Amino acid sequence: MKIGILTIGNELINGRIADTNSSFIAREMNLRGWPVEIMMSVGDDFDTIKTRLHYLLTFTDAVICTGGLGPTADDITTAAVAKAFGLPLLMNDAVLTDLKEKFARYHLRWTDNNAKQAMFPQGAQVIANPVGSAAGFALPVKNKLVFVIPGVPSETRRMLPEGVLPVLHRYFPQAVAHTTKQTIKTFGLSEAAVDERLADIHFGALGVSVGFYPVFPENHVVLIASDPDAAQAQKNLQKAVDEVSARLGDCIFSYGESGLEEMIGASLAEKKLTLSVAESCTGGLIANRLTDISGSSVYFERGLVTYSNESKIQLLGVPSDIIEKHGAVSKETARRMAEGVRKLAGTDLGLSSTGIAGPTGGSPEKPVGTVYVALADTNRTICRHFAFRWDRIRNKQVSTEAALMMLHQYLQGKTQHDE
Amino acid sequence: MKIGILTIGNELINGRIADTNSSFIAREMNLRGWPVEIMMSVGDDFDTIKTRLHYLLTFTDAVICTGGLGPTADDITTAAVAKAFGLPLLMNDAVLTDLKEKFARYHLRWTDNNAKQAMFPQGAQVIANPVGSAAGFALPVKNKLVFVIPGVPSETRRMLPEGVLPVLHRYFPQAVAHTTKQTIKTFGLSEAAVDERLADIHFGALGVSVGFYPVFPENHVVLIASDPDAAQAQKNLQKAVDEVSARLGDCIFSYGESGLEEMIGASLAEKKLTLSVAESCTGGLIANRLTDISGSSVYFERGLVTYSNESKIQLLGVPSDIIEKHGAVSKETARRMAEGVRKLAGTDLGLSSTGIAGPTGGSPEKPVGTVYVALADTNRTICRHFAFRWDRIRNKQVSTEAALMMLHQYLQGKTQHDE
Repeated sequence: MKIGILTIGNELINGRIADTNSSFIAREMNLRGWPVEIMMSVGDDFDTIKTRLHYLLTFTDAVICTGGLGPTADDITTAAVAKAFGLPLLMNDAVLTDLKEKFARYHLRWTDNNAKQAMFPQGAQVIANPVGSAAGFALPVKNKLVFVIPGVPSETRRMLPEGVLPVLHRYFPQAVAHTTKQTIKTFGLSEAAVDERLADIHFGALGVSVGFYPVFPENHVVLIASDPDAAQAQKNLQKAVDEVSARLGDCIFSYGESGLEEMIGASLAEKKLTLSVAESCTGGLIANRLTDISGSSVYFERGLVTYSNESKIQLLGVPSDIIEKHGAVSKETARRMAEGVRKLAGTDLGLSSTGIAGPTGGSPEKPVGTVYVALADTNRTICRHFAFRWDRIRNKQVSTEAALMMLHQYLQGKTQHDE
Repeated sequence: MKIGILTIGNELINGRIADTNSSFIAREMNLRGWPVEIMMSVGDDFDTIKTRLHYLLTFTDAVICTGGLGPTADDITTAAVAKAFGLPLLMNDAVLTDLKEKFARYHLRWTDNNAKQAMFPQGAQVIANPVGSAAGFALPVKNKLVFVIPGVPSETRRMLPEGVLPVLHRYFPQAVAHTTKQTIKTFGLSEAAVDERLADIHFGALGVSVGFYPVFPENHVVLIASDPDAAQAQKNLQKAVDEVSARLGDCIFSYGESGLEEMIGASLAEKKLTLSVAESCTGGLIANRLTDISGSSVYFERGLVTYSNESKIQLLGVPSDIIEKHGAVSKETARRMAEGVRKLAGTDLGLSSTGIAGPTGGSPEKPVGTVYVALADTNRTICRHFAFRWDRIRNKQVSTEAALMMLHQYLQGKTQHDE
């Protein structure tokens, strides 16, 4: 079975937005053994969509389209697809009712152009959108399939696995082996280093395909086992997971889709521990990530973004002579910040960051990217030093990740020492 | 003149690498008034490259290909293009000499497969590669042009403006219109509302194209004017900008690429004002965005993520009876938070947020998405109430944007009152 991808939107062909859906879809298809033959992007133009779609179907079995499902006049994908196959557009009452309910629930003013999002070509099967207003659809045409889903990446990422893949599996059962998938999330190794550590594993012999996906600053390894027999696929996958685990060890923080903040949240809640944070170079990003988790108020007591020296002294009780002698960016200050916030907030744990995010503020002894993170509990404080090498935004991200990773490993009971 | 883009590489169609060249090339073309009709990605396959290239040339005037120019066996773009037009491959002695010199200079061992990079289809004009080994070429075929340049983004980014554009200008002099562009960033209106407000502007009559780009929670409007005369293009653009400004008014926060945090940073620095932030529902995201700007330490003194009631009372001096009577999520608490952090930090301004990000914690009187943001200066405190309707992450994002927008409008001297 050959797959074509058609991403639709003027914002793509005028270069305003880089298409990230195509590579996401291609990866998901490829991991399941369905080769992508072609990826194409075109503008929101009636005839173009129609013509290109017909062309793609001459040499593929299924075309997955994204984009152009909004309520405004320039979003014409559904109408163009209907026209391409001479099908009338029909109102789907269930979708219309659902749309109107969403509008009512959120106190949005209903305007008639929104009804457009409840119209589908005759014969289409609706694909629900769990995270947005525009539903998608699957349209069987002449033993082939056309899918249309929204182009908003967060919606594409949900609707492809939840809505598109099941239909593909149903229509092309001969292409289907049992597949089972495991994501392994790591931090602390470069992509090349992950690649090198896994080089001696014979994934092919295990019937497992492996993908490496850098999601800055993390590296994710995705293993997919395919076999006609479901139990065998699961067994092969487990073997591959064990091999990978043995080689990546403590750099692994999650088996599955959970992020570091979720893993930490679950541990803190389970152990009934509370946390406070004092940030300098990360500027609030540690607190922001921790509070992305629903229910974080149970364990996250407060976060202080002590950007000025004065705030470090006044709120955290960092002695001014420590800052004068060692600098605000130093092991000593990081330790005092973690201890200070823990004491002030009366929490079990205190986590801190201090560093130079850049691009200015570096010196020969402490260049841009110099970062200290520290973690204090009742008995002791541990501190780690890093020398990052990114731009300001990414230095903040990787410093936040390093602080959270330190906390995660502590909560997992892994040996911690100053570095 | 219509442009097609063909990116070539197995790493693209298996999803391992996201194509960034296409959007780069499209943007450069579009800004020069040369519309990109289509972007296509295919694998390193002889027949595929040949067939798709012919297809693209049926409805475009020039096709720009990237990728597949390396020395290894899987890089076959040059040979496939030659075959597509029945042309022999000829050795270019100047390029061969240059290649061998580069190898000698960098002490690389010369192997014969590298000579492949000095072979070009008969009639091709070589495009020099100032940053890598693989030269590209332009091939005129039947009043059309095919370009082939490397797919390494840093090489594409040099060779497009330096090698491709001059040839395009030479072959299609009549196509050159002057193009000028304006981005207008807004917050506070839905995409549909922006669309509706601008519906009566006749952009076409002004020679201006308009694009709407939702970048949650903002909506960006991009206007592009094209005209053979540069002054006329600028005049038409200004007319369109004026019309849009009149209709979107205070929802506009930026004319250009700057974000809200940059606009605010520039205003605070210019007015020599300092700022502190007290956050509850936004969980550190306000501080994080403000500190994304290099040099923010000049005006951003501290941020407090007062997640617990205790921290609001202890650090910000919010009276406990205010929290008991009105709740932590209330106008009264928001106001006291902004005033409290301003006083504690000794800054000119204090900004606060409190609300229910969800998905839990809502009540009939205060459903999920209830948010208050407040801003205090020496003389007064203003507070705004919002009822958002997103998931937790997006409620945090939109609440942060609302707080920053309030601050931005204040700094612009716009009338502010409680809402």
